[in-house]
Amino acid sequence: MKVDGRVERGEQTRRQILRRAVDIASVEGLEGLSIGRLATELHVSKSGVFAHFGSKEELQLKTVSAAAAIFSDLVVTPALALPDGGPRLTALMEGWLAYSEGRTFPGGCFFSTVQAEFDAREGRVRDLIADYDRRWTSLVSATAARIPGLTEDPDQLAFELVAYLELANVRSVLHADPAAYTRARAAVASRLALAVSA
Amino acid sequence: MKVDGRVERGEQTRRQILRRAVDIASVEGLEGLSIGRLATELHVSKSGVFAHFGSKEELQLKTVSAAAAIFSDLVVTPALALPDGGPRLTALMEGWLAYSEGRTFPGGCFFSTVQAEFDAREGRVRDLIADYDRRWTSLVSATAARIPGLTEDPDQLAFELVAYLELANVRSVLHADPAAYTRARAAVASRLALAVSA
Repeated sequence: MKVDGRVERGEQTRRQILRRAVDIASVEGLEGLSIGRLATELHVSKSGVFAHFGSKEELQLKTVSAAAAIFSDLVVTPALALPDGGPRLTALMEGWLAYSEGRTFPGGCFFSTVQAEFDAREGRVRDLIADYDRRWTSLVSATAARIPGLTEDPDQLAFELVAYLELANVRSVLHADPAAYTRARAAVASRLALAVSA
Repeated sequence: MKVDGRVERGEQTRRQILRRAVDIASVEGLEGLSIGRLATELHVSKSGVFAHFGSKEELQLKTVSAAAAIFSDLVVTPALALPDGGPRLTALMEGWLAYSEGRTFPGGCFFSTVQAEFDAREGRVRDLIADYDRRWTSLVSATAARIPGLTEDPDQLAFELVAYLELANVRSVLHADPAAYTRARAAVASRLALAVSA
């Protein structure tokens, strides 16, 4: 029982560290993370943080995966409960906009920040970020492909839809202006109407 | 004459420093810049770099302005030589894609990187980056507004067009995949055709 309690407390600390790490990285990027800083902010020992992550790269990788899990729970899982094709695609779009607009992470979309930070670098962190981006793009594309009667290229449609979401996030954070979400919603709606009626 | 020569050499050093700073920041962000690093890489003294910029913030601000000048020469000036409305808008879009695809800066679009880096922060650097973004958006929007017979909101059209450009840049850098430019070109062409025929 004593051991179990310790394991549980360890897991709780690990989750706390990752949640804080995700929030910091959404504002300052993954290079803004340091084991020392997390230890200070969360009132745990540096060796305690180190025991969980071992290196800055490990911490960055785990932070990316933690953000992906939060994103998935919030945006992907609810959409998958809906019928495939149009309803699911609309839910993915609206779920993404709500995830960004609701500031799930204080710096807006976590992935927008870290993609721009790591896209021109090399290594495991960049590869993981690229992999999550591919999964998201594939999901949007595959969902679009199952809209009954779609006569256009679902990859092209997915590209355009995701572009609206991304720009809404950047604009709203950079200019502290929520109007970008209104533009993105209008763009998604008219683009989907076009895809279905074409 | 001696003084003029010294002034000229000083100006040349200043330009060299800024050109290197823009390239570094396009890959690693503006936080990747340091006076010491630039001095080492360019074989000038730290005090020489310091004499030109004084502080890291000053260096970051001047780097943003230097990147904006390069962007303007490459994308905006040639487009302004064309008739307003459709031809100019098409030139702005194609100029932007060529600027990103041609890797004017090694990390792709300089502004995509530094916007994501600074959008959730506060201060003069963020304000300057936001200001350049507003100018670019206004230019695209004002140019769209002068397409003869445009029946839709030019701000909405500009939002969608810029979204395609931005996503092409991020995707191509993140996945080292030039296909994103093909997608963006197709999106721009069909969106403009729709705007004009509507």
